[in-house]
Amino acid sequence: MTSILLDEGQGVVQAAMEKAREIGQPMNVAVEDNGRYLKAFARMEDAWLGSIDIAIDKAFTSASFVMPTQEMTQPGQPLYGLEATNNGRVVIFTGGIPLMRDGEVAGAIGMSGGTVDQDQKVAEAGIAAF
Amino acid sequence: MTSILLDEGQGVVQAAMEKAREIGQPMNVAVEDNGRYLKAFARMEDAWLGSIDIAIDKAFTSASFVMPTQEMTQPGQPLYGLEATNNGRVVIFTGGIPLMRDGEVAGAIGMSGGTVDQDQKVAEAGIAAF
Amino acid sequence: MTSILLDEGQGVVQAAMEKAREIGQPMNVAVEDNGRYLKAFARMEDAWLGSIDIAIDKAFTSASFVMPTQEMTQPGQPLYGLEATNNGRVVIFTGGIPLMRDGEVAGAIGMSGGTVDQDQKVAEAGIAAF
Amino acid sequence: MTSILLDEGQGVVQAAMEKAREIGQPMNVAVEDNGRYLKAFARMEDAWLGSIDIAIDKAFTSASFVMPTQEMTQPGQPLYGLEATNNGRVVIFTGGIPLMRDGEVAGAIGMSGGTVDQDQKVAEAGIAAF
Repeated sequence: MTSILLDEGQGVVQAAMEKAREIGQPMNVAVEDNGRYLKAFARMEDAWLGSIDIAIDKAFTSASFVMPTQEMTQPGQPLYGLEATNNGRVVIFTGGIPLMRDGEVAGAIGMSGGTVDQDQKVAEAGIAAF
Repeated sequence: MTSILLDEGQGVVQAAMEKAREIGQPMNVAVEDNGRYLKAFARMEDAWLGSIDIAIDKAFTSASFVMPTQEMTQPGQPLYGLEATNNGRVVIFTGGIPLMRDGEVAGAIGMSGGTVDQDQKVAEAGIAAF
Repeated sequence: MTSILLDEGQGVVQAAMEKAREIGQPMNVAVEDNGRYLKAFARMEDAWLGSIDIAIDKAFTSASFVMPTQEMTQPGQPLYGLEATNNGRVVIFTGGIPLMRDGEVAGAIGMSGGTVDQDQKVAEAGIAAF
Repeated sequence: MTSILLDEGQGVVQAAMEKAREIGQPMNVAVEDNGRYLKAFARMEDAWLGSIDIAIDKAFTSASFVMPTQEMTQPGQPLYGLEATNNGRVVIFTGGIPLMRDGEVAGAIGMSGGTVDQDQKVAEAGIAAF
């Protein structure tokens, strides 16, 4: 029973969206289970279309490596080229966070639509509801 | 204001899932807007993983051609080969229905997880909530 | 100077669209050159989104094999599976016609948005303008 | 009625091509609607084949994030890796500009074939005709 349940996932999505409304930035919000599969998703009015895939793939990336997405690699550093793996679904910048339960990965949230800081804040609000 | 709003899409998803629970068949439920972009999605516990893409792509197909997905073609009939178009995202069997508003397409619902009859019934329950 | 010029391609597109308006069916119209590369394209209001790729790929298919798209193959016949080649861009039903100049291929037109018969009529109107 | 109409899109394409002729640089010109779908396209004689996709994808990028394409990111900066998202269709250099109507995105123009400065000038000429 480690993996996130639908009710939990929908709660995470709603909490994230409330934060996004509070800061006035429309967002795409995705929650995936611990198998990297989409569980719940919502796109707010006027959220960027280019952010649908990014939100889903940030959750995918966080669940893939059980860590927050962040500046994962750069030219000259180890793992350079990581974003080309997994059919190009790895996102190497901020906005995805794993959902942990009793020390194990239960899933992940991915967020896209604002600046890197806004995405991070909204993702944290989602995590707090888990 | 033709395209479906998030609140509406989430309502459609919830209504479809209630029906799926009633008939005891876990489902993936997707609602897309009139641009074929994902608006709301939910996957019930134990719903087939193979049905995530099918649900999303049934909504994509219904919004693409503004008609229910159905037995769209068969060998020997016109349009044979249709399922190979649009990067293989066209689903040519039952389970997707357009969401219409004032005679124009507002989006579409796609459903996958049960038999063709079950998918259709659940999709109709979603439509009824729109 | 065999390959179609832009002015010619735009003329073909306009002629096809006039026919589509005459029969009251919104269409996507694509003209490609003899290298199978997009030269001119137009999408009429309310034309199916699912037909953008189909129109472009019908022109691609016609220019690829220098013949009209049509019921090119079926289960049990030679070339079964043809639609899976060329990265899935081969369309094996009606609506694409080569544009010929002095017995050589100059390009192709592809049409999508109506029934097979409507697509064919509109494609022929485009060809007639070449 | 926010999204760009075909007549408008064709006017934008023609205006851009006139500018391209004036500066003597053959170009690919794409106009997409506010759903990132191709509305009108033209390729001038001798325009680079490699620029077809770039023109279309610059329009896609501008409509995706409702901002001009530009030097969006570089190694060491936030969003590094952005170009790998959306199936590799994000173009992170100059040449795409959103088409705005009453403060909302109506679509976008994308241009490719010359230097970054030439592309920008031609794109602006297209925008001016909207």
